Amino acid sequence: MRYSLLDGGKRLRPILAIRTCEAFGGAEAEAMPAACALEMIHTYSLIHDDLPAMDDDDFRRGKPSCHKAFDEATAILAGDALQAAAFEVLARRGSDPRLVLELAAAAGAAGMCGGQQLDLATGADVREIHRRKTGALLTAAVRMGAIAAGAPDRALARVTRYGRAVGLAFQIVDDILDVSGSARDLGKTPGKDARQGKKTFPALYGMEGSRLRAEACVREAVTAVAFLGERGARLRELARWILSRSG
Amino acid sequence: MRYSLLDGGKRLRPILAIRTCEAFGGAEAEAMPAACALEMIHTYSLIHDDLPAMDDDDFRRGKPSCHKAFDEATAILAGDALQAAAFEVLARRGSDPRLVLELAAAAGAAGMCGGQQLDLATGADVREIHRRKTGALLTAAVRMGAIAAGAPDRALARVTRYGRAVGLAFQIVDDILDVSGSARDLGKTPGKDARQGKKTFPALYGMEGSRLRAEACVREAVTAVAFLGERGARLRELARWILSRSG
Repeated sequence: MRYSLLDGGKRLRPILAIRTCEAFGGAEAEAMPAACALEMIHTYSLIHDDLPAMDDDDFRRGKPSCHKAFDEATAILAGDALQAAAFEVLARRGSDPRLVLELAAAAGAAGMCGGQQLDLATGADVREIHRRKTGALLTAAVRMGAIAAGAPDRALARVTRYGRAVGLAFQIVDDILDVSGSARDLGKTPGKDARQGKKTFPALYGMEGSRLRAEACVREAVTAVAFLGERGARLRELARWILSRSG
Repeated sequence: MRYSLLDGGKRLRPILAIRTCEAFGGAEAEAMPAACALEMIHTYSLIHDDLPAMDDDDFRRGKPSCHKAFDEATAILAGDALQAAAFEVLARRGSDPRLVLELAAAAGAAGMCGGQQLDLATGADVREIHRRKTGALLTAAVRMGAIAAGAPDRALARVTRYGRAVGLAFQIVDDILDVSGSARDLGKTPGKDARQGKKTFPALYGMEGSRLRAEACVREAVTAVAFLGERGARLRELARWILSRSG
């Protein structure tokens, strides 16, 4: 659990939760249980996705993946226990049950797990795969940050738009990096997704088309949080940073 | 998820939660989210335990296990999504965060997942394995039923003793049935645990010694809920039923 959780990812989900919480006047500490829970769910999904029966990846972030460093049984159990730990850390503070609901719905069959199942199937739509596989948890990160700050429902709908747009931009850029070979910088095997016949955005829209779509997503994200004024500055920065990764 | 969840297990955990809730004057409906969540966690653990990298069981309750009926990736994801669904069903009703905490702690590294990891290791103590692997969730079932009924903390400590004793009795009887070959009645492969070199209570105490210990556990369980008077009758019946399974 420690090996995979503490190996230095980008921490995008925790950052989204904390920055959104702050944008609504909440303190970093208020978003921290959600931030930790999100990273635990994300990490468990990477551990399980890397298993031989799934994407069969021997490396993750430039290190042997969990099942290579230990063994398959340990990797399955580390992932399982990380999921439980995510809900434990959320409940430990006796926090808002809406946080548990957001995380569970985003992680489960209607979200992340369902998206991974679609990804393993043939003929599934790349947009639907990513909306569920990565989009659901990124959107939950933003919503959980807002909930932790006590944001009103009306504002929640707006940051949900931000979360969805940022999530989609992130995935398109990830696919672009995979195809362009810059994936090595991310500690991934370059071109592996594409070689495995995975559904990618460049395969659907081409490289230039994908870049244009990622840009449109970032514009939408920036617009969605315009109502936050100066307080939304860091959320807008974050959206633009995602785009800057595609070079 | 449906294939494994709705295949007719004993439903021991839901029954423990509901009966305990009723013993404290709660209605069945009040314990129902906890009951469903517990069965979802239990089912996911069976799906993952049956995987080739774990106990490698082709059959479960007389049917092909999940990864045989579908494939390994689907079985991993079905288990993952069932765990998320368990927390979703608990949070859906906006219920007491203590329920989430009980379930998460019992399911995670300190409980069920840690127990399974110990079971795969060599040299682990059989009592410690079962306290965590099966005992934690059975104890959580009883505690969650009591919490759902709004039982006072003092009573919670007493039903915890009941839950631990019942959990241990259940596991000892399960081991006895495995060794005596009656496991076929349970849809399991008889003698498989023992042949696999799994740590069992009969290996530690002998058959007669195991039976005596199971009886002592049931006596302890019955005593622990004596304070409930007539309202605890069904909890005492349940404890005695566990013993009656050993023949």
